[in-house]
Amino acid sequence: MVGHLLPTLHDIQKAARRLNGFAVKTPLFPSFALSERLGARVFIKPENLQRVGAFKFRGAYNRLCQLSDTEKSLGVVAFSSGNHAQGVAAAAKILGLKATIVMPSDAPKIKRDNTLSYGAEVIEYDRKTENREEISQKIARERGSILVPSFEDFDIICGQGTAGLEVIEQGQEIGVHFDHFFCPIGGGGLISGCGTAIKTLSPKTEIFGVEPENFDDVKRSLAQGERLNNDNQSDSICDALLTPLCGSMTFAIMQKYVDDVLVVRDQEALYAVKYAYESLKLVVEPGGAAALAALLAGKMDVTGKTICILLSGGNIDQEVFKKALTTSYC
Amino acid sequence: MVGHLLPTLHDIQKAARRLNGFAVKTPLFPSFALSERLGARVFIKPENLQRVGAFKFRGAYNRLCQLSDTEKSLGVVAFSSGNHAQGVAAAAKILGLKATIVMPSDAPKIKRDNTLSYGAEVIEYDRKTENREEISQKIARERGSILVPSFEDFDIICGQGTAGLEVIEQGQEIGVHFDHFFCPIGGGGLISGCGTAIKTLSPKTEIFGVEPENFDDVKRSLAQGERLNNDNQSDSICDALLTPLCGSMTFAIMQKYVDDVLVVRDQEALYAVKYAYESLKLVVEPGGAAALAALLAGKMDVTGKTICILLSGGNIDQEVFKKALTTSYC
Repeated sequence: MVGHLLPTLHDIQKAARRLNGFAVKTPLFPSFALSERLGARVFIKPENLQRVGAFKFRGAYNRLCQLSDTEKSLGVVAFSSGNHAQGVAAAAKILGLKATIVMPSDAPKIKRDNTLSYGAEVIEYDRKTENREEISQKIARERGSILVPSFEDFDIICGQGTAGLEVIEQGQEIGVHFDHFFCPIGGGGLISGCGTAIKTLSPKTEIFGVEPENFDDVKRSLAQGERLNNDNQSDSICDALLTPLCGSMTFAIMQKYVDDVLVVRDQEALYAVKYAYESLKLVVEPGGAAALAALLAGKMDVTGKTICILLSGGNIDQEVFKKALTTSYC
Repeated sequence: MVGHLLPTLHDIQKAARRLNGFAVKTPLFPSFALSERLGARVFIKPENLQRVGAFKFRGAYNRLCQLSDTEKSLGVVAFSSGNHAQGVAAAAKILGLKATIVMPSDAPKIKRDNTLSYGAEVIEYDRKTENREEISQKIARERGSILVPSFEDFDIICGQGTAGLEVIEQGQEIGVHFDHFFCPIGGGGLISGCGTAIKTLSPKTEIFGVEPENFDDVKRSLAQGERLNNDNQSDSICDALLTPLCGSMTFAIMQKYVDDVLVVRDQEALYAVKYAYESLKLVVEPGGAAALAALLAGKMDVTGKTICILLSGGNIDQEVFKKALTTSYC
């Protein structure tokens, strides 16, 4: 894909400076339990510990803090299944601007409640019959507001990439070089940004994305060499990853940097939520646990490797969490 | 209290070198949500992310790795409500020695199961009618094994103190000086070690312990100037903190370094477990959440202060966790 100015490491480093003091520099720590189980040296990058409980705050703040005063005065609009919603709402609150969020009517309650708690206005739509982009664009036009995309945006990608930059920097501090990096894929913003930072600083680190079953558009798109849709009638427990189609910019970046994509079933994602609760002592949502799920389900042999698993979010409704706790090994 | 050789910062630094590569250097990170709620600048030291899910691995490994070969060949015995059990069992497994653990029959299932999973032998006793020290001493005598105390031991205290050493070092790395440090108290091993490290490196940081209601022996003992018992017929949801009496060494150290002790009710501890799940995305057990509970319940005004809250463990049975999730604000 030509025509896009793609983010570089330098752009991600600039984003990191903007986020300093506003985002959490989430830790990188080893899990001895998981290392033993996978026969690998395993480190966790827990973005569920990020402000708003998901990595999305990084991109949202990096985008919003660069708005002009005029743009700020007109507010922002975003569409999101929940974590981008919270990221935009929280960043808008910090910067003192109004946020309007278009959310699917079946979004987790915790995500909707949190978004409202940051002072945003929430407008619901039906994920299966309505087009969230059209609704959002209409609102943005009417109000003169900036539409803040959830992944297909230079500054959003740079913001998300700061998580990958931290992974490499934190690894270097403790003398660790990663063979593999695993992270979930929705629209591709996170893996695009992280992939750019990681491959630039550590070209031999292989980047693996993980998608939910029925939402494996990126896997199929990379194989096909062009962007393919998901069937938006499908469902998955991984609500954070239900993107109809990745972006043309994120696709171009993923073509450069993503080595392969793994796919997980609902049951595997729920088991990973339970595993994170029991053995990592972390609260992770199903989509946020997708990369962990792929490894626990043995989708790839990582024996003897040094790996980093990014957990992308922890905003999960109690009902789903309790259901996950009853899941047996799959 | 005279007669004890008390640990110094130097001893704790030596313990930190022994633990390097074996224990998790748990992160220190800010919580914006909690900072906003308490009107303070709040950092979390999550020892639930430690190996075995609690700080206890630090002390156990520091003690066991210094045994002579002859001592190692005879194995070790410990008594514990669960987290020290797991710490000793895991350290023994790493060092290739046999561990026998005397546990109360009402210990959480997860703690018993994990202890067994590290290959230890578990012997049960009735917390309300039997004396765990006598049982353990008898086994140790019969087998010629070393008895590994859960808190009243120089090397155990030094090991636990490495958590406090990390708090100060990690704070310094990001330019943060703590006004207050909060941590749970059972037998006093953790707060003694952490207090020693913290007060030596940062004399102005005030150290606050937190005990469960009916197990406030340290609060009463410090006020009285001598060690007082708890009524061992009492109960508390904070199973990790149900110590009949603190140690004479830990008491001597606490007299030097502990500024005050707060007390929390069961309901407050359960609410803190829920808060950690919802807003910190961490799995914490009731006793492990005691310090957080005290602050959420407003036991002390920390407005404008920079504080560190240590979460000491995350080994909680599902039933208790689910019960905590239904707790409303108290």
